[in-house]
Amino acid sequence: MTFNAVGQKIPKKDAPLKVTGQALYIDDLELPGMLYGKILFSKYPHARILNIDTSKAERLPGVKAVVTAKDFPPNFRIGFMKDNPPLKGNKVLSTRDEIAAVCAISPEIAEEACELIDVDYEVLPGVFDPITAMREDAPILHEELGSNVLKLPWKLVCGDVEKGKSESKYIVEDTFTTQWVTHCCMATSGCIAHFDINNNLTLYSNTQIPSLAQNDFLEALNALGLKNRRVRIIQVTIGGAFGSKLDTYPYEYIAILLALKTRKPVKIVFSRDEEFFATSPRQCTITKISQGCTKEGKLTFREVEMILDNGAYTSWGATTPSVMMMPISSLYRVPNVKYEAKCVYTNNTYCQAMRGYGNPQATFAIESSLDHLAEVSGIDPYDLRMINANQPGEITPQGFKITTCGLKECLEEVAKRLNWREKRGKGGGKRGVGMASLIHVGGGARVYKSDGCGTIIKMDDFGKVDVFTGATDIGQGADTVIAQIVAEELGIPVEDVNVIHNDTDVCPWDVGVHASRTTFVAGNSALYAARKIKARLTEIVSKILEIPQEDVEIRNGIAFSKSDPQKSIPVARAIRRAHFTTGGSMLMAEHFYDPNNENLGKDFKGNLSTAYTYGTHGVEVEVDTETGKVKILKYVAAHDIGRAINPLLLEGQIEGGALMGIGFALSERLIYQNGYLKNGNFLDYKILTVRDAVPVETVIIETDEKEGPYGAKGIGEPGLVPSAPAIANAIYDAIGVRIKDLPITPEKILKALKEKAGTGNKA
Amino acid sequence: MTFNAVGQKIPKKDAPLKVTGQALYIDDLELPGMLYGKILFSKYPHARILNIDTSKAERLPGVKAVVTAKDFPPNFRIGFMKDNPPLKGNKVLSTRDEIAAVCAISPEIAEEACELIDVDYEVLPGVFDPITAMREDAPILHEELGSNVLKLPWKLVCGDVEKGKSESKYIVEDTFTTQWVTHCCMATSGCIAHFDINNNLTLYSNTQIPSLAQNDFLEALNALGLKNRRVRIIQVTIGGAFGSKLDTYPYEYIAILLALKTRKPVKIVFSRDEEFFATSPRQCTITKISQGCTKEGKLTFREVEMILDNGAYTSWGATTPSVMMMPISSLYRVPNVKYEAKCVYTNNTYCQAMRGYGNPQATFAIESSLDHLAEVSGIDPYDLRMINANQPGEITPQGFKITTCGLKECLEEVAKRLNWREKRGKGGGKRGVGMASLIHVGGGARVYKSDGCGTIIKMDDFGKVDVFTGATDIGQGADTVIAQIVAEELGIPVEDVNVIHNDTDVCPWDVGVHASRTTFVAGNSALYAARKIKARLTEIVSKILEIPQEDVEIRNGIAFSKSDPQKSIPVARAIRRAHFTTGGSMLMAEHFYDPNNENLGKDFKGNLSTAYTYGTHGVEVEVDTETGKVKILKYVAAHDIGRAINPLLLEGQIEGGALMGIGFALSERLIYQNGYLKNGNFLDYKILTVRDAVPVETVIIETDEKEGPYGAKGIGEPGLVPSAPAIANAIYDAIGVRIKDLPITPEKILKALKEKAGTGNKA
Repeated sequence: MTFNAVGQKIPKKDAPLKVTGQALYIDDLELPGMLYGKILFSKYPHARILNIDTSKAERLPGVKAVVTAKDFPPNFRIGFMKDNPPLKGNKVLSTRDEIAAVCAISPEIAEEACELIDVDYEVLPGVFDPITAMREDAPILHEELGSNVLKLPWKLVCGDVEKGKSESKYIVEDTFTTQWVTHCCMATSGCIAHFDINNNLTLYSNTQIPSLAQNDFLEALNALGLKNRRVRIIQVTIGGAFGSKLDTYPYEYIAILLALKTRKPVKIVFSRDEEFFATSPRQCTITKISQGCTKEGKLTFREVEMILDNGAYTSWGATTPSVMMMPISSLYRVPNVKYEAKCVYTNNTYCQAMRGYGNPQATFAIESSLDHLAEVSGIDPYDLRMINANQPGEITPQGFKITTCGLKECLEEVAKRLNWREKRGKGGGKRGVGMASLIHVGGGARVYKSDGCGTIIKMDDFGKVDVFTGATDIGQGADTVIAQIVAEELGIPVEDVNVIHNDTDVCPWDVGVHASRTTFVAGNSALYAARKIKARLTEIVSKILEIPQEDVEIRNGIAFSKSDPQKSIPVARAIRRAHFTTGGSMLMAEHFYDPNNENLGKDFKGNLSTAYTYGTHGVEVEVDTETGKVKILKYVAAHDIGRAINPLLLEGQIEGGALMGIGFALSERLIYQNGYLKNGNFLDYKILTVRDAVPVETVIIETDEKEGPYGAKGIGEPGLVPSAPAIANAIYDAIGVRIKDLPITPEKILKALKEKAGTGNKA
Repeated sequence: MTFNAVGQKIPKKDAPLKVTGQALYIDDLELPGMLYGKILFSKYPHARILNIDTSKAERLPGVKAVVTAKDFPPNFRIGFMKDNPPLKGNKVLSTRDEIAAVCAISPEIAEEACELIDVDYEVLPGVFDPITAMREDAPILHEELGSNVLKLPWKLVCGDVEKGKSESKYIVEDTFTTQWVTHCCMATSGCIAHFDINNNLTLYSNTQIPSLAQNDFLEALNALGLKNRRVRIIQVTIGGAFGSKLDTYPYEYIAILLALKTRKPVKIVFSRDEEFFATSPRQCTITKISQGCTKEGKLTFREVEMILDNGAYTSWGATTPSVMMMPISSLYRVPNVKYEAKCVYTNNTYCQAMRGYGNPQATFAIESSLDHLAEVSGIDPYDLRMINANQPGEITPQGFKITTCGLKECLEEVAKRLNWREKRGKGGGKRGVGMASLIHVGGGARVYKSDGCGTIIKMDDFGKVDVFTGATDIGQGADTVIAQIVAEELGIPVEDVNVIHNDTDVCPWDVGVHASRTTFVAGNSALYAARKIKARLTEIVSKILEIPQEDVEIRNGIAFSKSDPQKSIPVARAIRRAHFTTGGSMLMAEHFYDPNNENLGKDFKGNLSTAYTYGTHGVEVEVDTETGKVKILKYVAAHDIGRAINPLLLEGQIEGGALMGIGFALSERLIYQNGYLKNGNFLDYKILTVRDAVPVETVIIETDEKEGPYGAKGIGEPGLVPSAPAIANAIYDAIGVRIKDLPITPEKILKALKEKAGTGNKA
């Protein structure tokens, strides 16, 4: 099959707007009469609030409203476990707790007013790690719950791990830990809330979940006594999301409350400082993992126990174990699996979704452990992986139906490009190679009751097309990919397709941009809507050219007879002929696509996604044993993506993912001490900059997924999943020490080298 | 049939926004970096431009661009006859001619800059009335055309007028003249033009024709060398239109040019002064009419010759004769008809569509003449009308297929409410009664190649509906009527329907808001789209309740079994059931409705509309014979509207129309002297104010038009059509003088009374 629009390396449609500064981010948006909101955060990580005196703030000229917890209904809570009041009235549980908020005619006045609010606290002892928080004598954060351990059911059992152990020739057991990392969105969080005269809410927002957010805010309006209202979410240009905007947050509810009180548009946009301490990072984990294999290297079992620091409240971060189950059960063929995870409240920041949604933490443990097992069993790590690699057609222990699977090809490509056989174990104590693989959902993921996305298409008299999609472009290029799919189906130039995705009044429902689902789900939705248009167009052309419908082909905006290409008509002219006649018609179509994947059962089994995606990253490193510094000499990222709709954007996703993965592996972390963030700025939080970037050699394996749009599977998250273990494995190959605690800083390497040399203290 | 939403007197959906000042008119809209444009108009009605010196204007600080004719391609012309360059470089033909334009960082600077532009003129002799303009020695305005008479084919011949004359017992002949009146929109004309980085144009506009304007501006971009671009029209709240915004105008092209030059949004909004002299009024006419009847009062023929003052350029006003043909051929049954019209260029303002589109001018002549014929034949004017009244099922000489027709009922109601038999001819020389009827299109009008309108509907998880319509709400309440139709069809509350009509990117195509077509055409379009949603909904409910689809009924948001109403489910819940399941779906639908009416043939015959609407107005007046002042004692307006979707808005349309008609009859006129407007302000231009308003007794005749949505026909224009002749006829009944020249001012009445008494000079 030859393609016209699909497979083209087309730059992102919104790139010109962004590079010329014309894109409107939330910070750029001004509405007439708009007020500026500011939140007063807690001074302490754990304290009882004795009194809040807002009188001085209220008297400051220019202040239009001051709100505290008493302005919300008493039991109003938000979040996954409904444990988070948008404003805290009784107790604060972390230093990001919202105590009061102000809106004023300028941001400066709002800030000054916040400083004028007096809060009396009774400081309480805090608990800052989940192990301590699980102790009997630990202070209980949510007293009404009676325990700091969340009542969440994360437990997966497949096969019989004890039997697996008994069949094992080799068994390894290790504990790995990962840190808090944050999304570092270039545009900070923010919104503008505005009520119309009928008390319908419009929220300008950079959310990733317009339809679900709409639902959340409708609930809030209900709680505020505004029944049966409408909520309209208008998405501004989103300057990065990476999962951070998959939930609704206190600042949004506060903006809504202030807007309701003042009847004016109210804007709250976080400063960079607030973006660091008041948004929700990736959950940090303590993972005990054990794996075994037979003499021949066949995996026999995998057993994982995990503890997650949930922080003070519960957002979607607490559900990442449901995704961690995926690599634990289904990365490589392992017959017996057991997994259990606990999320524990602490007086730290609460956590959220972040690209990979738990997969990077789990895969770090699995793939580091696998190299350990390879060493113990004396099998080359590459061979061990090839022996156990997943294959098309298999059903994994968790019940995933693997349709396409290019894992072996990815492993082979990485080994080849790394020159694995020549380099492995031969780095002279300085250089080393390592690899790690991943599985991820690639055909949607039924984590919500619907995994659907709607599309509406209309075509104008000039053959130009407007596509209203439920999908959200958060910078990943969804609009461009959807435009390519529609252009391909209709046989028109990509530039003739305009994608509209930013308004819940206009755009159909979509569950949100998560789970690497947009190309697959929104792409299919757009494809099927376009097919309806094409059928009508074919009918019209067939009548005009007097040829059978099967003989009609459309390319580059021209419809013609396949058997006699002389017979042709421009698409636009055919459309006008159908339009400009009595009883005329125009081309419009709609489609709601919901994949046939399954919600996991109570046992967490089921076919979560319509397709799964695989990949392998390979790394060659050089470690400076004097300084502990790791230099990446080569980075290969091979991914089975079904079909590359746009190889340019695809490579961008993989490169961006890999760099995020390298940051996770080597440098990034939020440093919290006793509940206070110590490095909430770009100088001290070591995100990779352009100077740190390494070239990523991207290898695209196309497996042509039958259910995917033109064969495509998702690629949003996978790029960062195996980076950390691949690097850790390469470091081990180079210098013989295994760092089990991310990030792998020079300090940790030096310490480990000393321990290995017997000059340091064993941990 | 009982209705829930249809037939309800629901206030306009946008009324709260308007009365609280929250509606955004073009004047309210500000875009970041926006510049303000201002146009320099001609000093003379007819002159050669010798030189334009913009250098001083260009040097004024804050000025960003100055443009003249040379900035447009040399042969670029706009308008119906493509005779109007947006900026004039060689000759000016009227005092509203655009010579140059400026944009600057403030409106004040733009205005100052205009004053700094030096124009050298060679003043030419002007021609200010069409009779003079037709003389051989008259100056030719458009020299390349060789004549001031436009080459337009306005000629209709039905039957044989000479035969009709020969069969007549009575014949009358009169000449009637009508004046320029203007729309008096409360919000003045204006737009904001803006180009994106790809040179696609967005125009914020108060146009009545978003889809056609899009087309016009695409042509302009083509002419400016921007091929294959996109034009997006975003409609702001429209503060009155009445036909004035049925065309695109020089100021819009000028704003586009300035925006292209500066790469900034450029706003041009007319001052009230400009709104008076630089927009296009109703065409003024000179109408010679002859009618005859048999001894029994049967009409035998109608012959009409008309001359229209076209002004200096050609907009849609020049096509009003095509609509005038309608009453001339089809108001009352008249077998032989002849009509001819000439449009003549003069150095006056050029004319445009205005509510009724020629019908008021023609009907003034027809219905005044008919009373004359009644007098001559000795038949009571009411009886003469009843004898000749149209009836359902007839095909008129022009080929109109009259489906429903309530003319007789309208006549009867008016006669009854005026107490006709008691009052006619018995006003004691002071009081009198008169009546006049109308025919108008009521089921669309195929004046363009398409008379269609598209609708897209989506329904959310809460049973709330978004309707994207091609229709435009210009204040008439289209959004509300469409919401009622959709609510009726879906069995949900009207407030759950949100109508979106303001963005060509989002809304389907529509030919524009004209010809009283919106309720009928956009209403049907919405109805048929809603029917598709209802079919799906019925299917879903039938499955859930386990009842046959025929047994499903939906009312007030609840679906239930007709045979067993206990079996029920809220619509919203049924929708969620269908949505939140594997392979789920959501309710969306689209429909493009184009009525099966006909473009008129070259002979101007054919079934222009799917349905026709009739009405009769009756008036009782008292004339002060000392002052000539006319007081309206009673005003009855009876209309056959098929079905009243919203009686409140319907009455509003009729009342507003009648008041506009009374102004046309008695007080309104633009006074031009030698090409200069002398009364361009609300003090001197005598629009009726609230103090002048008279109570209008509205009579609604429902005839249930089969093709209309729930039986409805259009009512936008008819309300003003018969006002002037009804009043003129009543005045004649009161004081025995017939004023044939509108408006019927006290001066004209006094003059006519004097003439009648033999004390004045005969005209």
